Amino acid sequence: MESYLLTEMTWPEVEAALKTVKLAIVPVGAHEQHGPHMNESCDAVLATEMAKHLAQRLHPLVLVTPTVNMGVSPHHLNFPGTISLRPETLLAVLRDMVVSLKRHGIDKVLFLNSHGGNQGTLGLACASFAQELEVDCYYAKTTASAKQAMKAHISSTLFGHSCEREVSEAYYLAPHLVRPERLVKGDIVHGGRWEGMRPGNPIQGFYRYEEMTRNGCIGDATQGSYEIGKAIVEEALDELGAAVRALLSDSTDPQPARERELAG
Amino acid sequence: MESYLLTEMTWPEVEAALKTVKLAIVPVGAHEQHGPHMNESCDAVLATEMAKHLAQRLHPLVLVTPTVNMGVSPHHLNFPGTISLRPETLLAVLRDMVVSLKRHGIDKVLFLNSHGGNQGTLGLACASFAQELEVDCYYAKTTASAKQAMKAHISSTLFGHSCEREVSEAYYLAPHLVRPERLVKGDIVHGGRWEGMRPGNPIQGFYRYEEMTRNGCIGDATQGSYEIGKAIVEEALDELGAAVRALLSDSTDPQPARERELAG
Amino acid sequence: MESYLLTEMTWPEVEAALKTVKLAIVPVGAHEQHGPHMNESCDAVLATEMAKHLAQRLHPLVLVTPTVNMGVSPHHLNFPGTISLRPETLLAVLRDMVVSLKRHGIDKVLFLNSHGGNQGTLGLACASFAQELEVDCYYAKTTASAKQAMKAHISSTLFGHSCEREVSEAYYLAPHLVRPERLVKGDIVHGGRWEGMRPGNPIQGFYRYEEMTRNGCIGDATQGSYEIGKAIVEEALDELGAAVRALLSDSTDPQPARERELAG
Amino acid sequence: MESYLLTEMTWPEVEAALKTVKLAIVPVGAHEQHGPHMNESCDAVLATEMAKHLAQRLHPLVLVTPTVNMGVSPHHLNFPGTISLRPETLLAVLRDMVVSLKRHGIDKVLFLNSHGGNQGTLGLACASFAQELEVDCYYAKTTASAKQAMKAHISSTLFGHSCEREVSEAYYLAPHLVRPERLVKGDIVHGGRWEGMRPGNPIQGFYRYEEMTRNGCIGDATQGSYEIGKAIVEEALDELGAAVRALLSDSTDPQPARERELAG
Amino acid sequence: MESYLLTEMTWPEVEAALKTVKLAIVPVGAHEQHGPHMNESCDAVLATEMAKHLAQRLHPLVLVTPTVNMGVSPHHLNFPGTISLRPETLLAVLRDMVVSLKRHGIDKVLFLNSHGGNQGTLGLACASFAQELEVDCYYAKTTASAKQAMKAHISSTLFGHSCEREVSEAYYLAPHLVRPERLVKGDIVHGGRWEGMRPGNPIQGFYRYEEMTRNGCIGDATQGSYEIGKAIVEEALDELGAAVRALLSDSTDPQPARERELAG
Amino acid sequence: MESYLLTEMTWPEVEAALKTVKLAIVPVGAHEQHGPHMNESCDAVLATEMAKHLAQRLHPLVLVTPTVNMGVSPHHLNFPGTISLRPETLLAVLRDMVVSLKRHGIDKVLFLNSHGGNQGTLGLACASFAQELEVDCYYAKTTASAKQAMKAHISSTLFGHSCEREVSEAYYLAPHLVRPERLVKGDIVHGGRWEGMRPGNPIQGFYRYEEMTRNGCIGDATQGSYEIGKAIVEEALDELGAAVRALLSDSTDPQPARERELAG
Repeated sequence: MESYLLTEMTWPEVEAALKTVKLAIVPVGAHEQHGPHMNESCDAVLATEMAKHLAQRLHPLVLVTPTVNMGVSPHHLNFPGTISLRPETLLAVLRDMVVSLKRHGIDKVLFLNSHGGNQGTLGLACASFAQELEVDCYYAKTTASAKQAMKAHISSTLFGHSCEREVSEAYYLAPHLVRPERLVKGDIVHGGRWEGMRPGNPIQGFYRYEEMTRNGCIGDATQGSYEIGKAIVEEALDELGAAVRALLSDSTDPQPARERELAG
Repeated sequence: MESYLLTEMTWPEVEAALKTVKLAIVPVGAHEQHGPHMNESCDAVLATEMAKHLAQRLHPLVLVTPTVNMGVSPHHLNFPGTISLRPETLLAVLRDMVVSLKRHGIDKVLFLNSHGGNQGTLGLACASFAQELEVDCYYAKTTASAKQAMKAHISSTLFGHSCEREVSEAYYLAPHLVRPERLVKGDIVHGGRWEGMRPGNPIQGFYRYEEMTRNGCIGDATQGSYEIGKAIVEEALDELGAAVRALLSDSTDPQPARERELAG
Repeated sequence: MESYLLTEMTWPEVEAALKTVKLAIVPVGAHEQHGPHMNESCDAVLATEMAKHLAQRLHPLVLVTPTVNMGVSPHHLNFPGTISLRPETLLAVLRDMVVSLKRHGIDKVLFLNSHGGNQGTLGLACASFAQELEVDCYYAKTTASAKQAMKAHISSTLFGHSCEREVSEAYYLAPHLVRPERLVKGDIVHGGRWEGMRPGNPIQGFYRYEEMTRNGCIGDATQGSYEIGKAIVEEALDELGAAVRALLSDSTDPQPARERELAG
Repeated sequence: MESYLLTEMTWPEVEAALKTVKLAIVPVGAHEQHGPHMNESCDAVLATEMAKHLAQRLHPLVLVTPTVNMGVSPHHLNFPGTISLRPETLLAVLRDMVVSLKRHGIDKVLFLNSHGGNQGTLGLACASFAQELEVDCYYAKTTASAKQAMKAHISSTLFGHSCEREVSEAYYLAPHLVRPERLVKGDIVHGGRWEGMRPGNPIQGFYRYEEMTRNGCIGDATQGSYEIGKAIVEEALDELGAAVRALLSDSTDPQPARERELAG
Repeated sequence: MESYLLTEMTWPEVEAALKTVKLAIVPVGAHEQHGPHMNESCDAVLATEMAKHLAQRLHPLVLVTPTVNMGVSPHHLNFPGTISLRPETLLAVLRDMVVSLKRHGIDKVLFLNSHGGNQGTLGLACASFAQELEVDCYYAKTTASAKQAMKAHISSTLFGHSCEREVSEAYYLAPHLVRPERLVKGDIVHGGRWEGMRPGNPIQGFYRYEEMTRNGCIGDATQGSYEIGKAIVEEALDELGAAVRALLSDSTDPQPARERELAG
Repeated sequence: MESYLLTEMTWPEVEAALKTVKLAIVPVGAHEQHGPHMNESCDAVLATEMAKHLAQRLHPLVLVTPTVNMGVSPHHLNFPGTISLRPETLLAVLRDMVVSLKRHGIDKVLFLNSHGGNQGTLGLACASFAQELEVDCYYAKTTASAKQAMKAHISSTLFGHSCEREVSEAYYLAPHLVRPERLVKGDIVHGGRWEGMRPGNPIQGFYRYEEMTRNGCIGDATQGSYEIGKAIVEEALDELGAAVRALLSDSTDPQPARERELAG
């Protein structure tokens, strides 16, 4: 299926594409340890692949930019090989990208993100760029919207990093990321400070990944499969595709300035 | 009940208190429109009051710092009176506070936050300060942990700003914030772009509050009451108090550096 | 008496007030040690109270914003409890406030400051914001203009921090700040480096407060009284009120661009 | 041939590799127009491929990090699709990468750069990081050292962007970057301001690429070939490999601090 | 008379001088309009000359660095030729200078400043560098301490810029700065906003120089003379010299850390 | 010969000059060790002198601004007396200067630079300011264009700092910089890491000057002479003068925006 991938286009091709393109998808990943059974580029590759698939579904309304292949990963820095950007740096990269895109006439951008540690920065980015650059920016976790498939196929109570979900997504989208012969469960550190800071607890905060897991994984990667990956990815693509189409049709109605009599 | 409130202490009193204090609570609020029936200082006042109550429960282990009385509120700027800090500014304020606290020997800090728009910045703050300043920082939404009381007493599907929850909290904690004679429901703009970006949707992003509500409120403030406020606040204080105590006892065990043989 | 206090208003009330308001008063304080007989919030509280009084005199031409309740206090950091912002941080907070105010149509701002350590930053703020934001910013030390009352009532040669002047102001404006039973004179360190850097000397510079005073006070707080406070505060309010009125009437005459033939 | 590519490794593999690795190669590219006959990812891909080849020659002394796949390209921004980072942003990305690498014990870094517009920033990066981070940083233009092959095979007087050299390198390293059916010569704008600013002129400065070439190319891409690419790339790899080996052997002799008697 | 001027020394000479030097004098000036009768480099030149004279008196305890020959002059920017640095820029320059000096073993620095518009920034610089760089920084207005000579010889009520004082200083220190044939009085704009903001008024703020004077001067330059300049400069040098000597002798007693029992 | 030197002009004179001036020359130097036989201000003085001479040739089309008398010299910091600015600081100074110049109507600027360590920063400055400030900025190494004179008169293979070239330039332009009685050859450290990073090598990077030369010189200063200096300087002035004239005449033809059909 066809799609607009900026990395694989010449400028005259981009010029032609810009006649229909209304939104740019920026894949945002990370470079960080993924336990003994996944490559450290996992998040960058999965974000790229998801963006390509989503772009096919939304062709010719969107184009995909180069991937932001490193992200905010300080919690993984004590595992060898992790490269982490500070949030300020990621913001600067995204700002420059959005400024460049706007120069080409694109004022809607979706940051398609595969790494939880980037979410806070992406939220700030969207708010800041709306103020500073007069653009509409959105962000989405790549497969977070596949709620039914997750419910059906994921049984670990603690999952989300190099687990059955992520391994399954990789089997479906980029199998070279997985070392099938090394798949192991997360080697969880029980009783740690991290347990009080997981989502849903009264208090959040920063902890290092080795406080939670000795091998850098959580969940049970041995339960991953191509089929689960397909279910998750396709449901997420359905959801994301519909959401982007809704946004693009909405935006044909320009937002009126707040009416002065609004509380009359 | 007794508590350590930095704003009401002299330096010899602080010096004495530091013998038992292990954590500082920084109330973080906002200055932003709260519809026609609440003062714009609502979030700053509620964060302050929650911090005072929490400090009483945790006395003499904690002290309360001055309140950060403005926050990240760009989505409210089109309503008269809102003052918004950029995320970078809020980060700078919090960093300086943490640096000052560390100088006094305090290396654990809880940002007790009443305003949703601050959460992303607080998450980044905790991660950054752990790297830069060798402190443990945490953050909590003031009453988000009162899940049972919320479930029992809040019936609006869309709530969270100048709604029955917030008005109830104010009736209990700071009734001068409420104008009982002006209470109205949120005047919601149906069919807007914002509906696709509420929590739980595939895509998040920035929208202005007037895109969602003509009068600046959501939910149904007319349903608020002192009793509901009491139920929410007290449950949240129970949860927060227990969570802080758990953190403080945990931390008596120093976190070992990641062991080199961890994947052996 | 009536006044516009942003913290106690709803947005429709602010919208109505903006029809007459020409200038915003930003109270700027500090959170720092004030010896054994005053609360550390002293400067933040006094700035707030002075702003309220000044707003009453200038009603309905001015409104009061939330207070900047921490300031630039590095010289006090070795006394327990002091929280200090870097000058860059204070500038960022003020800039964001002025940007927000300008969005609401206010392009004149008075920083009403109670803390000497903020003065340098406020001077830079006024110059920078005039360039960057096209606003007119002013700053004033809360009671510095009460020259006659000072002359009449203050006998200490070295005064200005938790002294008879400040205690008197607090007795009049916010008596809960004072611990009457603990009032002491400043315990001055004679012969120190600081003596060569007091105002009026050939050389200025930075010194820490403990170089000058062992108990964090200077002057003689035991000489303070409600009556002195009243004399100082009321004279200062007279002076400030007249000065603001003069500025506001001046500014009805727009400043012409420099005429090209000016030196002809 | 074997090599250490961080993107294709797990953390235990990185941990093992770090026993021999002495230097990290950071591929630095760009995303910018390359005329009608090359993909916009050209520089990012070529830098990556060169890094892989160099790592094979230097195995097991080096590892390759993720690629910096966007660079400083403001001069190309008027051609559709170009994404440009500000120099400050590129510096921030590189600094964060070096900080992360140093945490893993690597204190020598080579920025292997394929894009002329990045050279100035890389020079500053090396100088700054040496001061700030106590690391030794180096940078190299990917094939600039292939002087003999260039002399033998390149006849255009003006070349260096989407020309016979770059097309040849791509034929050899990543042929999918080239559109053989669209190859054209640079459509040069004669008599422009740019002519006075080419290397070797008395004055340098910034000009936009469209001032120099109407189609975004210079040189004569139609003269490119796999053989020329092979000659250039292999000579450059020989030169780079020898240079890195020399650096690594040098550095076994620690640099003594400047001797005090040096001018005796 | 001998002195250490860094601009006129070789590195072996500096190395030798550092055996006795305890403090660096940094001349800080400005480049800004000085009316029709003085060169725009006036402040830079006068600061340099004052530093040279002061260094002679304090030889061999001090050395003079290169001059900061531009300053913070936004209020003069509407007069042709003025070059103004932002306060942040001046701070950055001074910080880099102090860092360099500290590397050479000098940890006491006096900013000798001839331009009023720099004073606020210099105050912040001293406070910030003390925190960040563990140095003692001081600042002085070049001739402000010549109180008796000023009182005896200056009769204008409004003076301080290209007036009889400054012209006199130039006659004595650098007569080429003055155009004797063009000397004029300040052409003051009476009734302006600036009158309410002069020193001693209740309110300070930023105003542009052309609001106050049509020809860029204040005071009465025609009253200036070599003799007045000599009186002012020599008195100031006496005062500054004594003050620096006092600081340097003080500092032989290291400042003790605040004693814990200070309020006992 | 006449020229416009901003440091020696009054504002009415600048106003008059601006009627013909089209470009500002900013002399950019450094303050750094120049071995035992040249003053540390060498680069600042030579840049200033070159600018004056060039301005005479181009009168009345150009004016000369104050000199940037410190530069980016981290590689010299281990020699006593060197003062180094960070690249960010130099950029900030240049930006403020360009902003000020633009305010006076000058939108073309030439940074005339005598110090190699500044070149990278000047390249970034020109690119950044073109984007941010809508100005045309250029930079030139003061005498780099004197290729024939260099070829005829310089025999050292390694030269460029306090060598026969620089000493000769000083003999011609500012002989007080030289100590004829102390002239020595560079005391080169053979076999060092620096040899692999000199221009023309495959790899560049940062090294400290003492790694290369024990006395801070390279080349053979004893071979310098007034005549060589004259030959170099005059050839360079010829080249620079012609290049600036070409730029100024070019720019009378405004650059058209890129034509949309450019690749048709």
